[in-house]
Amino acid sequence: MMKKFLDENFLLQNKTSQQLYHDIAKQLPIIDYHNHLPPVQIANDINFQNLTQVWLYGDHYKWRAMRTNGVNEKYITGNATDLEKFQQWAATVPYTMRNPLYHWTHLELQRYFNISKILNAGTAKEIYDEASEKLQTAAYSVRNLLRKMNVQVLCTTDDPTDTLEHHQKIKNDHFEIKILPAFRPDKAMNADDAAAFNAYVSKLEEVTGDSVSSYNDYLKALKKRHDFFATLGCTVSDHGLEQIYAEDYTEEEIKNAFNKIRSGKDLDYQAKLKFQSAMLVEFAKWDCEKGWVQQYHLGALRNNNSRMLKQLGADTGWDSIGDFSQGRALSKFLNRLDETNQLAKTILYNLNPADNELMATMIGNFNDGSVAGKIQFGSAWWFLDQKDGMIKQMNAVSNMGLLSRFVGMLTDSRSFMSYPRHEYFRRILCNLFGGEIENGELPDDIPLIGKIIEDICYNNAKNYFNF
Amino acid sequence: MMKKFLDENFLLQNKTSQQLYHDIAKQLPIIDYHNHLPPVQIANDINFQNLTQVWLYGDHYKWRAMRTNGVNEKYITGNATDLEKFQQWAATVPYTMRNPLYHWTHLELQRYFNISKILNAGTAKEIYDEASEKLQTAAYSVRNLLRKMNVQVLCTTDDPTDTLEHHQKIKNDHFEIKILPAFRPDKAMNADDAAAFNAYVSKLEEVTGDSVSSYNDYLKALKKRHDFFATLGCTVSDHGLEQIYAEDYTEEEIKNAFNKIRSGKDLDYQAKLKFQSAMLVEFAKWDCEKGWVQQYHLGALRNNNSRMLKQLGADTGWDSIGDFSQGRALSKFLNRLDETNQLAKTILYNLNPADNELMATMIGNFNDGSVAGKIQFGSAWWFLDQKDGMIKQMNAVSNMGLLSRFVGMLTDSRSFMSYPRHEYFRRILCNLFGGEIENGELPDDIPLIGKIIEDICYNNAKNYFNF
Amino acid sequence: MMKKFLDENFLLQNKTSQQLYHDIAKQLPIIDYHNHLPPVQIANDINFQNLTQVWLYGDHYKWRAMRTNGVNEKYITGNATDLEKFQQWAATVPYTMRNPLYHWTHLELQRYFNISKILNAGTAKEIYDEASEKLQTAAYSVRNLLRKMNVQVLCTTDDPTDTLEHHQKIKNDHFEIKILPAFRPDKAMNADDAAAFNAYVSKLEEVTGDSVSSYNDYLKALKKRHDFFATLGCTVSDHGLEQIYAEDYTEEEIKNAFNKIRSGKDLDYQAKLKFQSAMLVEFAKWDCEKGWVQQYHLGALRNNNSRMLKQLGADTGWDSIGDFSQGRALSKFLNRLDETNQLAKTILYNLNPADNELMATMIGNFNDGSVAGKIQFGSAWWFLDQKDGMIKQMNAVSNMGLLSRFVGMLTDSRSFMSYPRHEYFRRILCNLFGGEIENGELPDDIPLIGKIIEDICYNNAKNYFNF
Repeated sequence: MMKKFLDENFLLQNKTSQQLYHDIAKQLPIIDYHNHLPPVQIANDINFQNLTQVWLYGDHYKWRAMRTNGVNEKYITGNATDLEKFQQWAATVPYTMRNPLYHWTHLELQRYFNISKILNAGTAKEIYDEASEKLQTAAYSVRNLLRKMNVQVLCTTDDPTDTLEHHQKIKNDHFEIKILPAFRPDKAMNADDAAAFNAYVSKLEEVTGDSVSSYNDYLKALKKRHDFFATLGCTVSDHGLEQIYAEDYTEEEIKNAFNKIRSGKDLDYQAKLKFQSAMLVEFAKWDCEKGWVQQYHLGALRNNNSRMLKQLGADTGWDSIGDFSQGRALSKFLNRLDETNQLAKTILYNLNPADNELMATMIGNFNDGSVAGKIQFGSAWWFLDQKDGMIKQMNAVSNMGLLSRFVGMLTDSRSFMSYPRHEYFRRILCNLFGGEIENGELPDDIPLIGKIIEDICYNNAKNYFNF
Repeated sequence: MMKKFLDENFLLQNKTSQQLYHDIAKQLPIIDYHNHLPPVQIANDINFQNLTQVWLYGDHYKWRAMRTNGVNEKYITGNATDLEKFQQWAATVPYTMRNPLYHWTHLELQRYFNISKILNAGTAKEIYDEASEKLQTAAYSVRNLLRKMNVQVLCTTDDPTDTLEHHQKIKNDHFEIKILPAFRPDKAMNADDAAAFNAYVSKLEEVTGDSVSSYNDYLKALKKRHDFFATLGCTVSDHGLEQIYAEDYTEEEIKNAFNKIRSGKDLDYQAKLKFQSAMLVEFAKWDCEKGWVQQYHLGALRNNNSRMLKQLGADTGWDSIGDFSQGRALSKFLNRLDETNQLAKTILYNLNPADNELMATMIGNFNDGSVAGKIQFGSAWWFLDQKDGMIKQMNAVSNMGLLSRFVGMLTDSRSFMSYPRHEYFRRILCNLFGGEIENGELPDDIPLIGKIIEDICYNNAKNYFNF
Repeated sequence: MMKKFLDENFLLQNKTSQQLYHDIAKQLPIIDYHNHLPPVQIANDINFQNLTQVWLYGDHYKWRAMRTNGVNEKYITGNATDLEKFQQWAATVPYTMRNPLYHWTHLELQRYFNISKILNAGTAKEIYDEASEKLQTAAYSVRNLLRKMNVQVLCTTDDPTDTLEHHQKIKNDHFEIKILPAFRPDKAMNADDAAAFNAYVSKLEEVTGDSVSSYNDYLKALKKRHDFFATLGCTVSDHGLEQIYAEDYTEEEIKNAFNKIRSGKDLDYQAKLKFQSAMLVEFAKWDCEKGWVQQYHLGALRNNNSRMLKQLGADTGWDSIGDFSQGRALSKFLNRLDETNQLAKTILYNLNPADNELMATMIGNFNDGSVAGKIQFGSAWWFLDQKDGMIKQMNAVSNMGLLSRFVGMLTDSRSFMSYPRHEYFRRILCNLFGGEIENGELPDDIPLIGKIIEDICYNNAKNYFNF
């Protein structure tokens, strides 16, 4: 029998799954503990003027799909009009079938705009007009978009040198949704280029008012920012890395490396690794001191297309999954902190699904009973943020750890339209449990399993992050 | 309820899948854009004398199964009679259940010979006799086998030094099925052994009539062959590599390496890598100039069994899947060509499914909107050419790219009996879409999805290769 | 329709699967050809006093789950009472849903104790009491536990220096279940630490009565133990390694390395690799001479948590899955032995499922027709010993080899309670075949497929190991 596309029981393949979702998961508030939303837009509670602005201005997932579909860059990031861009996107949508974009697109049209039409070249104009008109109303300001989605807490991603002025403003406004910063010091440990590094240090000097002439000064200044982030409610840090750096090093070596790069000379490969290894440890210690959660996003091979990197800059859709060696360094890094009892709560996000089982078992090595689910294998990320990827991540956590202690979904998104991904995740989660209840692999105990669903969707994150 | 084995709805698990297959996919012609069929057999339109000749003389898939089943080499590649060999194979067939050989064997018996019996020791003799008798008739000449399978275009695999005389003859015959050569210069870049390399160069000198005393001469002679292949309708090249070679090199270094190996001295490891890296770039530039499609088969660990390699030579069933590092070199190689706008349409075939997601995202880095589906993650290959492998490859392409732009199936086979693998692929493809239509993950829009099926089975390849 | 949790058709999702399991697989005896049961307990036919002793004293799977659930080490390996520990475990059980522990726990309660209740904090006390009372009866001595599970043969894991006195006693008792030793010389080739190595050599000198002053002496003494193991019916060896060591070496180098370490000096990294590579080859030759089966457990990254390693020692739950390079070395090692016709029957166990396909194809390189299924890809191991892991391993073997020749399940367990894992495996196996019979992917030939099921569950192992 044929099930209607994207109806209320979308992804819920039996009665029990439907019950778990509709009775329990659906109404839970959203804690989105890691995303890339621009705080300035929330601070100013802006409105987007049309569907292209909110959907296409910053979404490199859609850009990649359009490029693969043979769309000229002019209609993607170029100087075509917003409507022209939208029409190109709409014409691409039918070609995205079986890609998560197809589901996300139609979920977003339904949930934000109450539009149930299928998007394609033929329906593009009417959908564009209807959605754009709504977007311009007060009900579609970004704060109202968050309210509409029942968001309760949201963590952005911020550089240590960021003034957090927008977070300050949001706080002063007493906005009822918690908008918190997250400490992401990727640039602070990037020693690839002496000039860029020194520019970064200057920015840090400026924002702290302290002069930085030694490695110790540098740590002190960064720590000052870490403390400042905490005053605005920050409880999480985040790192984007190909792989964990866990070289052996001495303080002497790091000081020398710091002095060398500060003098404008580039570091050799080994010195860079040592510097990065040392910085990771310092950041981790601060996270532990404050009881923060540290997050590591591992496995992306970035900026593969140098022609387009020059043209459009980073994060514009030219990244992919790498095959880095992850095991030994992860073990060494986590152990290094654990040995001195300085290992904070930690989430490992993995981009290459070939490493899922490695990650799912690695976390078990440092779950020492001090906190339930202390070390987490984070939700399926980026390219893996789709049905198959989520199921694989949850199966790995289930088979090799405790899914019941999982802190669940986050959007990791740049778009205010991405919140239905929490719904997507919850439906998939409920379907996993519901299917196994009905086929006799789990007991038919809805109160108990309902509680586990609730924990994964909401309670675990709330407790874990101290929100 | 029990479904009959290998009936008309084989692999089609619901009505919509069945509709997609029977109404749309089934009747489309076959474009087999990469295989290893011997052109001489097509040129001479030969007949096989019995089922052993067509099934067992060259099929190392079957050989491996027989060896695993404890069959003595005498009955595999040795001096047993054809009937004895067939009997050993037939006795092995029941033990291949859940291996693709079990499906392929019975599909081939049905589609070529209209034999629906199950092959085993008991039915071996009657099946052998019935099929062998048919094979000797005009209706079973190799050209008629291709006609029976509705093949429209077929690309073989040819060394640059090949005279292509058989392709010439086929062309002169005005055979209505396009039989095209493909340029596979593996030997031309293999610098492992100075003696073998120089023998290869001599062969090249002979076929071109040019003397080769420098690296430039060498490139010129190879390019001449590339041009010649084009005159016979060639539009594809192919490379079989453990991993992409993408070392840095200077022209000077390559010239020196060439001179050294030409003087009969073996190259050291690093010099070999540089030479191979340089050759790959040169071939790629020619492919781009001519608008060809370049194919890379990556990840095989070959010739593992040296005892049997000595006895039987290469490609006799002693190869396996390797775990090579693929990400960085692939990125560097493709980027190197893209930077100067010399990146041809490219297909990456992957042998280790652990790298599927890497491949499926790598292609997105160089899909720049110039051609729909410009860079392709090729169909499941060799050991992965089975139901699970195909589904995994198509899911990776779907989740991380556009399945709708996929150029679809190829046999990569040495056997004229392998064409039902296209049917196998099409059934699996239709079942993927049909299943998701029925469970509400895709809209019930048969015209649109039927068009996508048709594209993947036929149109995409036709357009992509300019057939 | 709702299926009851863990009823008689648990994991059997259709009639044919149920028929295959209940009519064929269920009643077959168990051959458990690799486990870590303590021979001393069988020799003395001990009784456990309570459920904590049999379930929690040595099971690091449960320990990891408890730690992940936030349970303090006191209640895991610490000085809490047995009942307290059990209560903490019982409270953790509901949180293990979707982890194999949840199934194993309730299967074990049903099969050993006839208890069908669900274990949780509320039922902990009554279940503990009922099971503990039974455990103290004669019917629950360890020999009777093995009888209850229909075990026919069982191989333990023993160091070459082990006296095997307990095996001797068991043999003298004419216990009708064959309890055989296995030769596991991990310590004999571990050259990480000169002091530990020399202590080991002393132990070897003691047990053999021979003095060991050269590498040749060392081999001779170890070989003497290998011979001795054979007198007690041993037909298997076993090795636990991150990856196969297959360095090139000369006898001279190994002799020098041996002399150096015997003089109390640590070896450098390269010398250690060479020494280990040489030892692996020597052991393999002896296995081949005697017609033994050699087993390699590959891919574990062990002892990640040094704080807990110091506190609790090895094998206490701080290990995980590594991402080692496996292909080339495996190929080289197996080929090295095959070249001189000294490759014994071999089982490769793989811990990282990303390498499943590599393993499943690697075995085919050395299956030369001499013995059916000579080289085996072993059953899903450790973290992979669960439904998903078993299915993936069996699908890889099926797709790339002959599942019909697979020697099937083993527990690899430290617990007398683990035998229902054979049942678990058999149900999953029957469901794989049953599902494909019903959907038309396999013929509806129960006698033939029933025979294959029987082979995988019992006959193949019996023949392969010469039991």
